[in-house]
Amino acid sequence: MIEAPSDKPTAQNETARVEAFSDGVFAIAITLLILEIRVPPTAQHDGLRTALLHLWPSFLAFVASFLTIGVMWLNHHRLFTLINRSDDGLIAFNLLLLMGITWIPFPTALLAEHLRGPDQRTAGLVYAGSFFLLAIVFNVMWRYAVHAKTVVDHINVTGITRQYALGPLMYAVLVVIATFSGVWCLVVSVLYAVYFALPPSLWRKGRRAPGHRAGAT
Amino acid sequence: MIEAPSDKPTAQNETARVEAFSDGVFAIAITLLILEIRVPPTAQHDGLRTALLHLWPSFLAFVASFLTIGVMWLNHHRLFTLINRSDDGLIAFNLLLLMGITWIPFPTALLAEHLRGPDQRTAGLVYAGSFFLLAIVFNVMWRYAVHAKTVVDHINVTGITRQYALGPLMYAVLVVIATFSGVWCLVVSVLYAVYFALPPSLWRKGRRAPGHRAGAT
Amino acid sequence: MIEAPSDKPTAQNETARVEAFSDGVFAIAITLLILEIRVPPTAQHDGLRTALLHLWPSFLAFVASFLTIGVMWLNHHRLFTLINRSDDGLIAFNLLLLMGITWIPFPTALLAEHLRGPDQRTAGLVYAGSFFLLAIVFNVMWRYAVHAKTVVDHINVTGITRQYALGPLMYAVLVVIATFSGVWCLVVSVLYAVYFALPPSLWRKGRRAPGHRAGAT
Amino acid sequence: MIEAPSDKPTAQNETARVEAFSDGVFAIAITLLILEIRVPPTAQHDGLRTALLHLWPSFLAFVASFLTIGVMWLNHHRLFTLINRSDDGLIAFNLLLLMGITWIPFPTALLAEHLRGPDQRTAGLVYAGSFFLLAIVFNVMWRYAVHAKTVVDHINVTGITRQYALGPLMYAVLVVIATFSGVWCLVVSVLYAVYFALPPSLWRKGRRAPGHRAGAT
Repeated sequence: MIEAPSDKPTAQNETARVEAFSDGVFAIAITLLILEIRVPPTAQHDGLRTALLHLWPSFLAFVASFLTIGVMWLNHHRLFTLINRSDDGLIAFNLLLLMGITWIPFPTALLAEHLRGPDQRTAGLVYAGSFFLLAIVFNVMWRYAVHAKTVVDHINVTGITRQYALGPLMYAVLVVIATFSGVWCLVVSVLYAVYFALPPSLWRKGRRAPGHRAGAT
Repeated sequence: MIEAPSDKPTAQNETARVEAFSDGVFAIAITLLILEIRVPPTAQHDGLRTALLHLWPSFLAFVASFLTIGVMWLNHHRLFTLINRSDDGLIAFNLLLLMGITWIPFPTALLAEHLRGPDQRTAGLVYAGSFFLLAIVFNVMWRYAVHAKTVVDHINVTGITRQYALGPLMYAVLVVIATFSGVWCLVVSVLYAVYFALPPSLWRKGRRAPGHRAGAT
Repeated sequence: MIEAPSDKPTAQNETARVEAFSDGVFAIAITLLILEIRVPPTAQHDGLRTALLHLWPSFLAFVASFLTIGVMWLNHHRLFTLINRSDDGLIAFNLLLLMGITWIPFPTALLAEHLRGPDQRTAGLVYAGSFFLLAIVFNVMWRYAVHAKTVVDHINVTGITRQYALGPLMYAVLVVIATFSGVWCLVVSVLYAVYFALPPSLWRKGRRAPGHRAGAT
Repeated sequence: MIEAPSDKPTAQNETARVEAFSDGVFAIAITLLILEIRVPPTAQHDGLRTALLHLWPSFLAFVASFLTIGVMWLNHHRLFTLINRSDDGLIAFNLLLLMGITWIPFPTALLAEHLRGPDQRTAGLVYAGSFFLLAIVFNVMWRYAVHAKTVVDHINVTGITRQYALGPLMYAVLVVIATFSGVWCLVVSVLYAVYFALPPSLWRKGRRAPGHRAGAT
């Protein structure tokens, strides 16, 4: 009917639907984590308190994976505020990224189950390795977006690229930690997520990024 | 391309995506509750009717948690109508809040499983304590938003702060109730949610809040 | 910052978020249905074909509940196109409706499990009764919206009220059918949903409704 | 209140809510796939590494179904960028399509469970047949949309119809492959999805389609 306006909203909707679909996958993956924690049955010798205390690996793994997926959602969300149109390559990389996010409940349950057993290092390697690969996909996707010129103008591309490059490095360290101890692998995951989500260093970064945009505008 | 307009929608989209992601997590957590209710198997002595009647703790816990999460979604939704931009601190608090919401299916199944056993008070404490902590996070998040000046103008901040402060108080009472009886803990949870969602007192509050905005505008 | 415009989008966003949250709950409840169908294990005497054929109650229950929830989503969606602002009462009724939708996977699994056993009528009554209550909540919600004057102007309120009233009547018949046979209860549920979703009678209705609006405008 | 504008947003919202609901169902179905992979328990003779290696059918089935649903979401998303209003018939076909998407976790778990057993061909037929039927529904839905004139102007309808027709053909081949081997059925599913999502042939197609629109405008 109305050609020109119909074309513009279509382009905007395309990015919007990729984000909406991604938000859905992130939200579901992060919420499914709780399903992996089994409720202790009634007939227990030592009482429920002891049974709940014995579930600490599940609770720790839940918190570590929730926060890590949460921070990855945050990064995804920020990445897409910098992207103003989607193309097929970006959608393909995004699908790969979402497959990684969807996968996380499995290594989470695996590490929780084996955290006190002889296989904690194997489980920890699967866990840390999954996040390491996700961090790689994130970086490749960002570089693709920059290369395909789908990013908005007036942003500090080099600065953001350097920030994203920190992820694979940190999760490579996590893989090394996992070869020693599954418990430390989870503890460091929590610390990483808290570092990314909470401290002023991040807030400064966060403020600097829009500041650059505002300044450029 | 177009600097000024591209900046404004970006800011709006950021809040919109935080809300969309939160809506997703709330919607999934509230719907997963039903998965915790196991269907009675076919080979039963007393017939299905008796088996279903014996499931009343699961049904009661489902209703109590559904309504409580529902009312918390409502509060979250109202909170974000008062917030006109998101910052990193708000997103971090929101993530913490969502972790609490995601967590609820576990204490719900725990209390349903142990409601008639000797451990009902332990389970009730975990249940009531979870909602108490959620109410605290809600309040801290609201105060942070007021402090960080991300709230809209012309609203009765002091009045809303007083309303939110009611939550931790009521759920502290629920913790005390849980030390006596798991069943009463669930019954009072239902009453709380109905009180928050249904009676004219809430509707009056609801009307007053936009009234203030309208009046100020 | 900008008072007047900020007030208008807020009101629109409120309805939008209620719809988004509802869409999420509908989408999750409708998708969780498949989790209730257990995959036949490998060590089977008669082979997988026979095992799959024996799962027909689960498949039938899946189709019946999927289509019924789908049609209810459609009605919910149409209802909200007729509502131009949300208030607390509407949100409370909507929460009650969503609790009913979230509940559906349980009676679905219950009826599938007991469809060939002596308890099929008990299970059928729970199943049909759930849809009957949902249809009642739908009607009460619509009448509330009309009464609270949150509906758009220029619509044939009486006509729509009459259409909605058909629901409780049809599902009351389903309750009667369930007292005879669980299988027929499912078959009739499928027929109801197909009747509501497919035949020209509905399409005519659907066209008439926007036609009224267009004509009035 | 304001007749003309209220009518236009209503029509836009209708398509938006169909897309949002569909996105939700796609996102949940694609994320539920991981729940079908059971974590190996702790007390294992050969250690966790061997147990994980034995899970390869589950991992392969997860990747195949994730990518296939992902590509179907992509097609759905593109289809709806070509549709500028929804009608009851389209919504009914869309509901049928979503029922197919929701169904996919079952054949995925079925094929993973039976991939190394004597029933792999039966399971493979259910798996490939499900995707074949989905591809048919996609085509019928597209033709209906063209027939009902709900598509946007200035697009190469014949070209798109030919592209969509490729789906049923390819999945018919998959059905034939499944009669020989369940493993090859999964491997070819992955190859199909990668072909649809990754290679330049798709990107060329993707660019051509908006190019036509842009050219027409």
